[in-house]
Amino acid sequence: MASNGAKQPLLSGLVDPASQIINECHRNRRRIRHVKSPPLAESVPSDTSGNGPIPCCGSFWGGLHQSLKKVALLLAVYLGLGTICFYAVRDDIKGKKTNPILDSVYFCIVTMTTVGYGDLVPNSALVKLLACVFVFVGMALVGLILSKAADYLVDKQEILLIKALHKHEKPGPAASLKEIETSKVKYKCYLALAILSVLMLVGTVFLYMVEDLNIIDAFYCVCCTITTLGYGDKSFSTGGGRLFALFWMLTGTIGLGLLFLYIAELFTESRQRTLVHWVLTRKTTNLDLEAADIDDDGVVGAAEFILYKLKEMGKISQEDIALVMEEFEDLDVDQSGTLSDSDITPAQSTQMKK
Amino acid sequence: MASNGAKQPLLSGLVDPASQIINECHRNRRRIRHVKSPPLAESVPSDTSGNGPIPCCGSFWGGLHQSLKKVALLLAVYLGLGTICFYAVRDDIKGKKTNPILDSVYFCIVTMTTVGYGDLVPNSALVKLLACVFVFVGMALVGLILSKAADYLVDKQEILLIKALHKHEKPGPAASLKEIETSKVKYKCYLALAILSVLMLVGTVFLYMVEDLNIIDAFYCVCCTITTLGYGDKSFSTGGGRLFALFWMLTGTIGLGLLFLYIAELFTESRQRTLVHWVLTRKTTNLDLEAADIDDDGVVGAAEFILYKLKEMGKISQEDIALVMEEFEDLDVDQSGTLSDSDITPAQSTQMKK
Repeated sequence: MASNGAKQPLLSGLVDPASQIINECHRNRRRIRHVKSPPLAESVPSDTSGNGPIPCCGSFWGGLHQSLKKVALLLAVYLGLGTICFYAVRDDIKGKKTNPILDSVYFCIVTMTTVGYGDLVPNSALVKLLACVFVFVGMALVGLILSKAADYLVDKQEILLIKALHKHEKPGPAASLKEIETSKVKYKCYLALAILSVLMLVGTVFLYMVEDLNIIDAFYCVCCTITTLGYGDKSFSTGGGRLFALFWMLTGTIGLGLLFLYIAELFTESRQRTLVHWVLTRKTTNLDLEAADIDDDGVVGAAEFILYKLKEMGKISQEDIALVMEEFEDLDVDQSGTLSDSDITPAQSTQMKK
Repeated sequence: MASNGAKQPLLSGLVDPASQIINECHRNRRRIRHVKSPPLAESVPSDTSGNGPIPCCGSFWGGLHQSLKKVALLLAVYLGLGTICFYAVRDDIKGKKTNPILDSVYFCIVTMTTVGYGDLVPNSALVKLLACVFVFVGMALVGLILSKAADYLVDKQEILLIKALHKHEKPGPAASLKEIETSKVKYKCYLALAILSVLMLVGTVFLYMVEDLNIIDAFYCVCCTITTLGYGDKSFSTGGGRLFALFWMLTGTIGLGLLFLYIAELFTESRQRTLVHWVLTRKTTNLDLEAADIDDDGVVGAAEFILYKLKEMGKISQEDIALVMEEFEDLDVDQSGTLSDSDITPAQSTQMKK
């Protein structure tokens, strides 16, 4: 994962858009990746155990911050436009009013998070249609923020884990890596739960203190808000309350979204692990060997076996293999069934001519 | 994909839980899979082009229906319990009432989908806490229904596509498969959009006819509902309206969820495709060959090359490879670096002894 960060400066001069995409796609894989074979790297580490050196993370953070900045910009544009629109039609919004600008932003946030208390409601055809547009765009934006927040937390934590891993001198083979992978997903759930609990506690105390709700009503209003239920019988009615709500509502709904996301990941991970375990422990038969033998030479090499098993685990598909196989056949100019330096040198000059 | 259906009856006698998990995990991969190498199959097709015969889909449907049945059962239990609870405390729910049982189910659905109009609201501490419990459980349930619905639509459509593919005699290599993969994601978006449009049209017409809203208000109420915004100024207030809402609200919110899910998939797919294209067209160098050479024999076989490229595409990770490599080394009793029948026969008897 973090190895992509090390890769980016090398690639950026050559294929800038692609390298950015690589970073994003790899990040979506959410795995600890090693630097055994970075493409276009200046030297290939001789260590074949898969535990390369710790890569530098500078440009990796840069890329992530870039993507967070983009989302923050989108959010600012959305809220800015929303506030201007709803401020302009403020007379066509009925309900409990405080400061007109604050109410416009508040209405915008209540709409985009789909909390929809109903303490402020559109009162003309135009504003109703405007609210419809803003809720659809807002939902997409909240989804985007949620996915970026998930990536951000995962990356942050992955770097911590890689560091922890390298504290132990010899991190050992895949088994311990798998353990870390498992506890990582659990740790993410705990993290999201902790964040959400703090947000719920802060919200309850605030509603109890500032909005003068009793403790049950405050908790009920918190639950109604973070789940985006928003019955609207209890909501933020004071200027101070609405100001607090601007920040708290967005973080609270996204916090709950994250928790659900991570719990789902926990289930997927455990199901996937059962499958991997089954694939790795089941008896290998002659039929398996026959099927795994890609080059039909009667024996199964390490790479052929790995491909076969990964396909069985559902990690790769036949099309993935077929696509790369085509490139292999193009590169293998002497038709030997293997690639060596002699294949590559003419292939390079052919590619350069194009 | 559908090949798993063909696999299941073969496996079911041996490893029932695992085979079910395989089916589910493979289904989550959402790819057209071929039957080149089904594990434990009675015969391995000699066709190595990756285009195997069309498998039978009977047990595949059985497995899927099983999983849908489970979700339907969960939903029935949730709504049943919810209705009983809210019926029991109906005097502590204030708002516009119609038939008490209908109102209880309606309140339950409004809560679980997080629409939360606020036309019926809890009016005692107990009911408020009850609503909090029901909204959290309901959200999880809606998420589960959404994911199962997504799988269902994908599988249904995949079978249609495989059939269409086999109408053309020779389906051609990976290129045309990739094209189908792309148009599949687009097609899913269109499908979700079509379903949602029909649901929105039906909802608008219904609200206009039965709830006596004008056409703008009806459309506004539809948008407020499917997005789960639910301001509550316009909602279902008649018995007939609430009966309709029971079915329409759940399908509408899930329909919109599906659309967002598929649009997100479209973006991921197109980003992934750019990466795959870059990995496959970039110049292969001597350094790549050195890094790809897993068995250090100085040349890169087809399988080694495929593994290297798939790792670069982010489809597999170093841990995936390391895990299977361990099993390979265990199986390779004569330490030849390849597996042949002679390795397998003693390995089998060792495994049987355990």
